[in-house]
Amino acid sequence: MIDVQSQPDDRRIPIKKVGVKDIRYPIIVRDKARDTQATIASCSMYVDLPQDFKGTHMSRFIEVLNRRHGRITLNNFVSILDELKEELEAKSSHVVMEFPYFIEKGAPVSGERSLMEYNCRYIGEINHASKNFQVGISVPVTTLCPCSREMSERGAHNQRGIVTVTLEFKKFFWIEDVIDVIESCASAPVYALLKREDEKYLTDRAYEHPMFVEDLVREVTRKLRGDSNFTWLKVEAENFESIHNHSAYAMVEWENDDAGE
Amino acid sequence: MIDVQSQPDDRRIPIKKVGVKDIRYPIIVRDKARDTQATIASCSMYVDLPQDFKGTHMSRFIEVLNRRHGRITLNNFVSILDELKEELEAKSSHVVMEFPYFIEKGAPVSGERSLMEYNCRYIGEINHASKNFQVGISVPVTTLCPCSREMSERGAHNQRGIVTVTLEFKKFFWIEDVIDVIESCASAPVYALLKREDEKYLTDRAYEHPMFVEDLVREVTRKLRGDSNFTWLKVEAENFESIHNHSAYAMVEWENDDAGE
Amino acid sequence: MIDVQSQPDDRRIPIKKVGVKDIRYPIIVRDKARDTQATIASCSMYVDLPQDFKGTHMSRFIEVLNRRHGRITLNNFVSILDELKEELEAKSSHVVMEFPYFIEKGAPVSGERSLMEYNCRYIGEINHASKNFQVGISVPVTTLCPCSREMSERGAHNQRGIVTVTLEFKKFFWIEDVIDVIESCASAPVYALLKREDEKYLTDRAYEHPMFVEDLVREVTRKLRGDSNFTWLKVEAENFESIHNHSAYAMVEWENDDAGE
Amino acid sequence: MIDVQSQPDDRRIPIKKVGVKDIRYPIIVRDKARDTQATIASCSMYVDLPQDFKGTHMSRFIEVLNRRHGRITLNNFVSILDELKEELEAKSSHVVMEFPYFIEKGAPVSGERSLMEYNCRYIGEINHASKNFQVGISVPVTTLCPCSREMSERGAHNQRGIVTVTLEFKKFFWIEDVIDVIESCASAPVYALLKREDEKYLTDRAYEHPMFVEDLVREVTRKLRGDSNFTWLKVEAENFESIHNHSAYAMVEWENDDAGE
Repeated sequence: MIDVQSQPDDRRIPIKKVGVKDIRYPIIVRDKARDTQATIASCSMYVDLPQDFKGTHMSRFIEVLNRRHGRITLNNFVSILDELKEELEAKSSHVVMEFPYFIEKGAPVSGERSLMEYNCRYIGEINHASKNFQVGISVPVTTLCPCSREMSERGAHNQRGIVTVTLEFKKFFWIEDVIDVIESCASAPVYALLKREDEKYLTDRAYEHPMFVEDLVREVTRKLRGDSNFTWLKVEAENFESIHNHSAYAMVEWENDDAGE
Repeated sequence: MIDVQSQPDDRRIPIKKVGVKDIRYPIIVRDKARDTQATIASCSMYVDLPQDFKGTHMSRFIEVLNRRHGRITLNNFVSILDELKEELEAKSSHVVMEFPYFIEKGAPVSGERSLMEYNCRYIGEINHASKNFQVGISVPVTTLCPCSREMSERGAHNQRGIVTVTLEFKKFFWIEDVIDVIESCASAPVYALLKREDEKYLTDRAYEHPMFVEDLVREVTRKLRGDSNFTWLKVEAENFESIHNHSAYAMVEWENDDAGE
Repeated sequence: MIDVQSQPDDRRIPIKKVGVKDIRYPIIVRDKARDTQATIASCSMYVDLPQDFKGTHMSRFIEVLNRRHGRITLNNFVSILDELKEELEAKSSHVVMEFPYFIEKGAPVSGERSLMEYNCRYIGEINHASKNFQVGISVPVTTLCPCSREMSERGAHNQRGIVTVTLEFKKFFWIEDVIDVIESCASAPVYALLKREDEKYLTDRAYEHPMFVEDLVREVTRKLRGDSNFTWLKVEAENFESIHNHSAYAMVEWENDDAGE
Repeated sequence: MIDVQSQPDDRRIPIKKVGVKDIRYPIIVRDKARDTQATIASCSMYVDLPQDFKGTHMSRFIEVLNRRHGRITLNNFVSILDELKEELEAKSSHVVMEFPYFIEKGAPVSGERSLMEYNCRYIGEINHASKNFQVGISVPVTTLCPCSREMSERGAHNQRGIVTVTLEFKKFFWIEDVIDVIESCASAPVYALLKREDEKYLTDRAYEHPMFVEDLVREVTRKLRGDSNFTWLKVEAENFESIHNHSAYAMVEWENDDAGE
């Protein structure tokens, strides 16, 4: 059978990324409390294609994924990138895997246990010169407006917001620990199950900790850059404003100047 | 050229709905303040297909739409249903058109003008026995939790919510007037542009008007059923809770028992 | 602490549905090949609220869910509805759980194994008079246009489509078996991993089995109504047309007239 | 009234982007055939915030938008960036506006007129050193697989795909002309309304023009880089594969090396 993809191409245009996008796949990731956690990822996997070749071999991307039997960790993720690059005879490979991650949390007063969902992602890129691996973590929080609090008789407008941290790092870390840091910076954390005493506690806590999106990204940056394991950070906050039908957004990028040492 | 769609079908299974789904189309609707408003609808249009025919003629749906040149009103919408039924030789037709509708609002204290977006929809169905036409209107609002307010030292959790009203009616009405009613029932309305004095006003207003989703759907129902033009109502409220990562939801259905008279 | 929700309400408007919407939750469902499968559901859970009460108790919905420790089956799903009705002192309860379900399939010629994702849902409702439980299953397929094939020199336009079956039943059945029936009705099934010989086989197979959306919903209805376990069916097909930027859609509803016997 | 946002901040963390995200706004853009076209944009507008200031003034973003009264063109878009930078006393500003754009097209044989929707976006960034403005255009097309065609008895799998071009340019150009180029590169263009003779023509045309995503991005790049008005290009193609439940994707980036001269 003729292999159309391997035929030469004479347009002399190299392709920067080619591959499969948005394939859903059940994976197993490491979990601090329970050792492992089953979840479902949305995966996009690409390689470059030199100008001489007509097409890539799409089925090999899925084969590389299948070979892992769904076990994906911070440590073996880079081996997927290596293998894609080799199997597809490419110079670079790029993979993004996005997945929900669940953590059991106790409510602040009642201690009632429930599960919170955090969207996480692994983003990797390998080329001839460098390897790059980032972890992204999105954390829903409560934010309470300092300006509204300052001006108003009682109360202040507040809302659900979402903080997304993307980071580069030197060695393994637990997603759970970064989530703890982010939640400690918000006006208040968010829970799936709250009793009345918890709701009172969180309302009071949010009122005592007013935060603009600007404050939130700065606070999270200040705390995370204090951990020498993190060499690069992007911190984003989006507020689903309760007084508007649009979002407020802020973003900080930070790089450790000593990172190369 | 053979007309495959018109061939007979011997499986003896009538098709309840067949047609085109999610076609986007620019339309012009009536506007209380400015006479007309250009917007963009997402349209789904269906007819039934008797058991004897193999297929419908999909291109005719688009032709019926094109014939209107985008002018769609509460009054001529039903004529689209009639025309679809006739052109497709069907016994019933169903159309849904969903579109954003913009209204200029003045902020409550500063009077600053800005545009608010409300998602609206026309839902029509005609069959041999009856004609049915509904209008749906979605209104973003602020809701403040009565329970949180009652228990907490200062403040109360609040959030963006969305109220969706679907209604049947006797004669033409302005979408603008229903939006006014809905906004008056919420803890506070939502705006695109607010100055500091407006933000103070709305924070105070929301604190003075705490509302569960249950309160909100009841309040909206109570006010709208007082208008004898409306013969049937569905009122839904969804709160994007600021203390949870999920929504609270409530729904009331109400029918005027005198509607048939 | 005052219980605001339990206070009386004098507007005399009963609430048809109140509860939590779109909470994401990891669940374990039964799997024909592997006994159980871990997946992630999006859950909405509602009860009615009599006109005398101001509010429901949102935290109890989550507690009922937590009590199952994520084990959800066709058999115990109804017990969630019972428990919600009881715990919330309601007359009716409604639950929808939507989740991706993965099945390992072998490619038609090479036999290469890979995972296919099918979106499934459980929809339950209990009130004083009746219990109703439906299962919904969405299956991506290939459809090839009979009209295009008939007219054209070579080839025919084809595309990805999605068939969604919602059914009521007498006793336990495997989702896998309904998926097999649906895939056998399409122009061709869809796979995550195909080698060249598989691609040739599926292209030829689709060309030999041209199907309008109308044909597809009739064929699936014809086969499923032959299984006396199914008492009610809704069969929908949506084609993401390759020659248009909108979808073609068809739907059949069928009820077994002997179902009540 | 105290201006909380203008208070100093001592964490010494500059904010790269702060502003409003995803506000929907009706705009009027230029149209080659009809002079102007009313559409609805989703806008995100940001500035940087020096480390010394606590917060930005969110209402000013909306005021700048309002001042245009919705008239947005390739030419005045940059003035929005300038004004944001000035009004917010910032060193940089970033704006993205995404909007559907409709063009009336004649079917290839019957000549039947209908409207096609193309998603477009303006992306602008100004800082102390440079101004950058990009236009993005997304075009739905038909793609037919060369490999499937080569191997199969008759026919070949095909599907809807979407080509997205993002470009930098020297002087004004019409979006319509870039869409023409993209559609000419695909296996076939996509239409809202087709008669049988058109469907035959397009099926035959697609069969005569098989294209991988790799071919498509190369072909579009080859044609657009021939226009000396374009100084930088990103060309992406995504196929909603008819034989898979995931997408195939390819991307080329090209820069005119003579652009600086």
